[in-house]
Amino acid sequence: MDLTNVSQAKVYDGWHKQYQHTSSVLNCEMRFAIFLPPSASAANPVPVLYWLSGLTCTDENFMQKAAAFEKAAELGIAIVAPDTSPRGESVPDDAEKSYDFGLGAGFYLNATQEPWKTHYQMYSYVVEELPQLVEANFPVTSQRSIAGHSMGGHGALTIGIKNPDKYVSISAFSPICHPTVVPWGEKAFRHYLGEDKTTWQEYDAVELIKTHQVTTPILVDQGDADGFLEEQLKPEALQHAAREHHVPLELRMQSGYDHSYFFIQTFINEHLAFHACQLFKD
Amino acid sequence: MDLTNVSQAKVYDGWHKQYQHTSSVLNCEMRFAIFLPPSASAANPVPVLYWLSGLTCTDENFMQKAAAFEKAAELGIAIVAPDTSPRGESVPDDAEKSYDFGLGAGFYLNATQEPWKTHYQMYSYVVEELPQLVEANFPVTSQRSIAGHSMGGHGALTIGIKNPDKYVSISAFSPICHPTVVPWGEKAFRHYLGEDKTTWQEYDAVELIKTHQVTTPILVDQGDADGFLEEQLKPEALQHAAREHHVPLELRMQSGYDHSYFFIQTFINEHLAFHACQLFKD
Repeated sequence: MDLTNVSQAKVYDGWHKQYQHTSSVLNCEMRFAIFLPPSASAANPVPVLYWLSGLTCTDENFMQKAAAFEKAAELGIAIVAPDTSPRGESVPDDAEKSYDFGLGAGFYLNATQEPWKTHYQMYSYVVEELPQLVEANFPVTSQRSIAGHSMGGHGALTIGIKNPDKYVSISAFSPICHPTVVPWGEKAFRHYLGEDKTTWQEYDAVELIKTHQVTTPILVDQGDADGFLEEQLKPEALQHAAREHHVPLELRMQSGYDHSYFFIQTFINEHLAFHACQLFKD
Repeated sequence: MDLTNVSQAKVYDGWHKQYQHTSSVLNCEMRFAIFLPPSASAANPVPVLYWLSGLTCTDENFMQKAAAFEKAAELGIAIVAPDTSPRGESVPDDAEKSYDFGLGAGFYLNATQEPWKTHYQMYSYVVEELPQLVEANFPVTSQRSIAGHSMGGHGALTIGIKNPDKYVSISAFSPICHPTVVPWGEKAFRHYLGEDKTTWQEYDAVELIKTHQVTTPILVDQGDADGFLEEQLKPEALQHAAREHHVPLELRMQSGYDHSYFFIQTFINEHLAFHACQLFKD
């Protein structure tokens, strides 16, 4: 698997770099970004936090707006940010070009329906192909954590819960906790997965908590001034399921914060420290 | 002068807000952004750092990408970021829509030539109208510092040097130090100021240092991997003039850093601490 370096910039004595590659899982050209802390080297490989972004984002939003690099440099954690959907002219998009389905809205699932299933396989891309690529090409270990925002918070929760052997900690900002019962999730899942709602439960954190023995620590921050909170996010359903099934979830309602990267940057250092606790255990 | 609030988001317990207003200096509608630290209140007004952005930017680039708010919140400094030129349909733009002249490229000067002079009066806007507006409407003092990047670094240096009574400290990232002898400056100054190059010197930091008694502390960071360094920026000319005229300039060449906001975010905390030393003196 060949990587083409697209950009690089020194930051906090480490590096931010963007790469392009051909994804055999997604059947298209993909771009991702990686932050490498200054301590990363072949002699000192570092663990990786995978960051999954929200609707409309690319690999750039988190890397430019989250203010995460000072702390990640200090802790010695690499950060990898994939795109939010397959891309390119061959990839089908929503006929109405809506922001919440199609390009920029892959929902971190494996589509089963035409015409989506050829390309929209973001679950396998994030869980399998991307870590293989990263671990083969950069000075990193196979210690991984996963985090994300909004649609990417849904991705982090569902992927982390389903793969306890692959991720040592999970965190999310403003995640779509219960996509099977909210407009964003219903629209995307109907197209990608079809009308049989039993197949949707594989990609719903609240449902997964009921059927998986979750012991991975989970941190969720949610702003109470988030305009999407009531209709789309449903953190109370996540908390309810977590309590009932003894899942180590800490949900923090943050007073006055909205859905933006200003919220994320305020608490990202605490998320990095949370992941570091697990990544550097023993 | 009426302000219309366009957006607001809580960040680090403070606030990022955008405002629109009618500028009588620029003869158009303008937008600016302000960060207010959590300590700012009518009973505890805070000093202000004015940030001037570079070519193609708006009020948003610094506010979204500079990672400055944690430190500014801690220090108790407000930050105000204006746009980089007049805006709107009535405002003339470069016929070729180039990125380095016209809209997004006001160069923080007062144009004297047609058709530019009606709107392109960014010098007076930044020095007079904007601070009046800010100080009349927000819990801030009249203690001011000024900083900027690239074209905005040129703006910060020239405005700070010419107004020692208005700004207690000056800093810049990758400033256009000597615009009268580089392509970016020559192109813009010819259009805005005309062919008489003696009028250009009013907006050239290297020339101003020779004719002003500069005692205001100046901090400049310049990456040595900056692609614009040799052709456009000329920090060595600034340093030479500063040494000759005993100006308190610290120029730091930063190894491996480029012209981007990744560079700015790496050192912005040191710039904020530098300004705080002057803003909170006695």
